Amino acid sequence: MSVTAPLGFRAAGIAAGIKSGGARDLALIVNDGPSRAAAGVFTANRVKAAPVLWSAQVLSGGRVHAVVLNSGGANACTGSLGFQDTHATAEKVAAALDDSAGEVAVCSTGLIGERLPMDALLGGVDTAVTQLSRDGGLAAADAIRTTDTVSKISFRRSDGGYTVGGMAKGAGMLAPGLATMLCVITTDAEVAAEQLDAVLREATRVTFDRLDTDGCMSTNDTVLLLASGASGIAPDPAEFAELVRAVCADLARQLLVDAEGATKAIAIEVVGAASEDDAVKVGRAVARSNLFKCAIHGEDPNWGRVLSAVGTTDAVFETERLNVAINGIWICRGGAAGDDRSKVDLRPRDVTITVDLSAGPHSATVHTTDLTAAYVHENSAYSS
Amino acid sequence: MSVTAPLGFRAAGIAAGIKSGGARDLALIVNDGPSRAAAGVFTANRVKAAPVLWSAQVLSGGRVHAVVLNSGGANACTGSLGFQDTHATAEKVAAALDDSAGEVAVCSTGLIGERLPMDALLGGVDTAVTQLSRDGGLAAADAIRTTDTVSKISFRRSDGGYTVGGMAKGAGMLAPGLATMLCVITTDAEVAAEQLDAVLREATRVTFDRLDTDGCMSTNDTVLLLASGASGIAPDPAEFAELVRAVCADLARQLLVDAEGATKAIAIEVVGAASEDDAVKVGRAVARSNLFKCAIHGEDPNWGRVLSAVGTTDAVFETERLNVAINGIWICRGGAAGDDRSKVDLRPRDVTITVDLSAGPHSATVHTTDLTAAYVHENSAYSS
Repeated sequence: MSVTAPLGFRAAGIAAGIKSGGARDLALIVNDGPSRAAAGVFTANRVKAAPVLWSAQVLSGGRVHAVVLNSGGANACTGSLGFQDTHATAEKVAAALDDSAGEVAVCSTGLIGERLPMDALLGGVDTAVTQLSRDGGLAAADAIRTTDTVSKISFRRSDGGYTVGGMAKGAGMLAPGLATMLCVITTDAEVAAEQLDAVLREATRVTFDRLDTDGCMSTNDTVLLLASGASGIAPDPAEFAELVRAVCADLARQLLVDAEGATKAIAIEVVGAASEDDAVKVGRAVARSNLFKCAIHGEDPNWGRVLSAVGTTDAVFETERLNVAINGIWICRGGAAGDDRSKVDLRPRDVTITVDLSAGPHSATVHTTDLTAAYVHENSAYSS
Repeated sequence: MSVTAPLGFRAAGIAAGIKSGGARDLALIVNDGPSRAAAGVFTANRVKAAPVLWSAQVLSGGRVHAVVLNSGGANACTGSLGFQDTHATAEKVAAALDDSAGEVAVCSTGLIGERLPMDALLGGVDTAVTQLSRDGGLAAADAIRTTDTVSKISFRRSDGGYTVGGMAKGAGMLAPGLATMLCVITTDAEVAAEQLDAVLREATRVTFDRLDTDGCMSTNDTVLLLASGASGIAPDPAEFAELVRAVCADLARQLLVDAEGATKAIAIEVVGAASEDDAVKVGRAVARSNLFKCAIHGEDPNWGRVLSAVGTTDAVFETERLNVAINGIWICRGGAAGDDRSKVDLRPRDVTITVDLSAGPHSATVHTTDLTAAYVHENSAYSS
């Protein structure tokens, strides 16, 4: 399953002692080839963690032999010494694999601003190398968890005989420009790096990039796509793109459901938009309204808070032509009260808000969660 | 005090039965002149409440005879019937004052999306007219409260013999483009409408517009400045501007301290910016980070969350030259850990975050609050 579902990949997930408490905190994924083609997308945050700076450089070459990931520390805002730590980690993995560090990607997640315990981490790499196996995908997915309550894994098999697998972590700081997350997707299809890059960018654009649980953008977001070519199959491009998109969508859904403190999974469908950009912009504005998110938490169909969020955007619309449905009940029609709000049932976990801009044929859906006292509690105490 | 501190103004605040529970919910302010010069600034939200549309039209004439304000309903997203309700309210006040409705401003606050109980409101206007007095400022300030726990009033006297007074309401939905608020400022100085407009825009730009408690922008924000000229004094322009700014700053501070569920008043000082716009942009990004706001609530000096918010902006900066102080302790220097975080005392209510962009001579301060379970609770239950 997970990243070892496709042929050509081995993985391990071990407890290196980076986290206090003895939980798994180091994952290693090795691509045994024959291909090492790879692509990556990274956070749009201008404050980038050391492993993001390193891995973006690695991925610019279009080849990845191994990915080493740690939880227990983000290695962000750690200056040049932090960058040296990332470099040393890549060198350590490369030495163990008898290769050069230039094809070793590094990902880190956890608290910002603290150096990693390098003795523990480098010792962990030695242990992880000895435990690499074709069954290691689940342990690797477990090792990258921070506040995640469950491991996130996914895979899809093509009828044509190749597979796409993936793992992800992320529970807070989930916002556009990638959610706060690490994600590694693998495939045994034979695909060149340029095609991987195009497929990954399109897949993340419509999945992870449309997840916004708390409006906060991470310093560490990384999504990697590695192809071993071990199946010997050159896939149909459209089918391959769809399988990668499906794995991304599945993992994004798992991130959403596990978001910190969330009790509702909210889909904001924006329809009738003059452009897809407008639809996404409006969806994000609603997803970022704390007042709206509190109302849904309270199971209050407060469409006024939807309209006041829509009104902060520069999307094409006229107020008197806005319609809003909550779970299928059109409680706002023409910018004013519509159907009876008592008809809206907000008890289920899944909530759908439909915003009709009446301005064109385009649409997009942005996913978010409610804002809860549990979110506040979890994030008031995170670093202590 | 309040809006009746300056000569030439009478006010009343009464219970019209718009709110359930019998609290005051209707305020009336009358400018007895000799001047009726006035200026107004309104929400930047594109979804504007009926009273905003009406009052913007009134203010375009530069003259206001009276302002009628109600709590208990925002009259936003109420369509053309809602606009007719606002118009009828202005007509009612005008008739009682034997004047035309064209110089009667209307403000409403409360839940979005519901029509106002017009019988109660129009009856309330009759009552309010009979109670207009030179002592009515406090009652008027009380009548515009929604979730405000206290009335917000302020005044400043010039040595030169004129006065500036004001009242405001607002406790949530406080974000740039004006906080969610209604505010009326009065003066007995002799000032032309054009000068009032310039003074008011500059004053709100550096006060209310730099208050962002929850990132949510209202449909109803209105700040009015009315001059009666009753003191007969044409003020020194700089002094007058400073007094209006001081009243706005005082009221903004009161809004901040009374923000829903807040336990901390946070000033985000951005210094070393390449432009004032950059400084404001960075301040707002930090003020809107739920993760940062939760950390301060938990008295956790989590500067990593400050940097990750700074990194979402397009302000001029280099990560390795960012410095952050919390309550005077420079816990981040050069984009990495600085002084010992245990030195930071976050127990006081007032918290100052200083972000040094090391990119220029400009600065600005944005004010926000922490994010608390009480905010979530209050806003989950508001309309029910």
